[in-house]
Amino acid sequence: MPKTELLYEGKAKKIWKTEDENLLISEFKDSLTAFNGEKKSSEEGKGALNNQISTELFKYLDEKGIPTHYVDTIDENNMLHKAAEVIKIEVIVRNIATGSLSKNLGIQDKTVLPFTLVEFDYKNDALGDPKLNDQHCLILNLVNDVSELDYIRFMARRINTLLVDFYAGLDIKVVDFKIEFGRDKDGNIILIDELSPDNFRLWDAKTDEKLDKDRFRQGLGGLTEAYRQVLDRIKNR
Amino acid sequence: MPKTELLYEGKAKKIWKTEDENLLISEFKDSLTAFNGEKKSSEEGKGALNNQISTELFKYLDEKGIPTHYVDTIDENNMLHKAAEVIKIEVIVRNIATGSLSKNLGIQDKTVLPFTLVEFDYKNDALGDPKLNDQHCLILNLVNDVSELDYIRFMARRINTLLVDFYAGLDIKVVDFKIEFGRDKDGNIILIDELSPDNFRLWDAKTDEKLDKDRFRQGLGGLTEAYRQVLDRIKNR
Repeated sequence: MPKTELLYEGKAKKIWKTEDENLLISEFKDSLTAFNGEKKSSEEGKGALNNQISTELFKYLDEKGIPTHYVDTIDENNMLHKAAEVIKIEVIVRNIATGSLSKNLGIQDKTVLPFTLVEFDYKNDALGDPKLNDQHCLILNLVNDVSELDYIRFMARRINTLLVDFYAGLDIKVVDFKIEFGRDKDGNIILIDELSPDNFRLWDAKTDEKLDKDRFRQGLGGLTEAYRQVLDRIKNR
Repeated sequence: MPKTELLYEGKAKKIWKTEDENLLISEFKDSLTAFNGEKKSSEEGKGALNNQISTELFKYLDEKGIPTHYVDTIDENNMLHKAAEVIKIEVIVRNIATGSLSKNLGIQDKTVLPFTLVEFDYKNDALGDPKLNDQHCLILNLVNDVSELDYIRFMARRINTLLVDFYAGLDIKVVDFKIEFGRDKDGNIILIDELSPDNFRLWDAKTDEKLDKDRFRQGLGGLTEAYRQVLDRIKNR
């Protein structure tokens, strides 16, 4: 299925239209940004790694009954998926406190949380993705009613349980991650976007070595090597 | 009942111990701060006005069955009230979008909200009072369980309904306000702190003239005159 028209270019992906209005192609880019776009770089091969890791995780979640936008992997950098109306909420799922959570709320870095925390951020770069409570989501008309927020929280926790289990088998801890949801042509809420170390904090279970975008945020180097290690562990499971 | 020992000095009040361990005295100060303490000033008579306005509102809410810490008004600047363990949540109630809500979420200034919004901010100056969702409140052990958050939200909305009605009779719109809750010696959750134009946005119903601390935040002048007008309208109702 060929690309027809560029629909949108984001920080890490280009989204292309196809001849089928219900299908889009995500082209994973090598570019990297952090701190709301203030820090930028590019790492050769990063896009292909994210496409392959996302592919494996979408297939796994699909097997477990999670509705996702995934359809097929076209080639190294391109994924075919359903078109969906994006719900403008960044769903943050946290098992261990680190990063902005530790900083903003004064929670000691690496504290294992008493339960999985699900946060909603407003997906709005111009406003710096501010934190939302349920009422804000309704006032901003981001969802139709509060039951949709409850469903999104439920799905986020279910996806977390599945991915924690998946990665535990690879000796990797799922510290936190950001996922997005959208509505397919029938109005169903489905998991969209990507499932890559750009949006997940993944630590080696034995050494706490960071296998994710924090290598870039914190200037640690070895980003693609870390992403490749994640992919290799997935492939060899 | 005389003051015995200074328990705490805040930005706008001194809290004194008394001979009765279950009773404290709040001494309302003339000092003013805004923007998390970055802007400071003092306005002669402001403390006395806030004490008198708070007195009237606590008495009104008490008549309507709201449990509060209010006991008696001692003199111009001093209020006797129950001791309470402070719940470290600033409860923000909003009827009309303005200020930080408009700025942070991109909601047009003066938009009447589709329903009363109740927000929880972490009462923590060092962290800049960050926004919380219900799960954050539990993780930070700010309450014992989620039902206490539901009760606080219920009480905040009930207080809002009563105060909107009260102020409507004075031709004043209640735009938004910040209240705090605490636990009395029996563990009951009660309304504490103060109910003054330092913590309320109050607009003249006909002209939208600001009758609150925004006169200081925005450098409009006439702060004590505005607070006096609020008190006079209350006294003459």
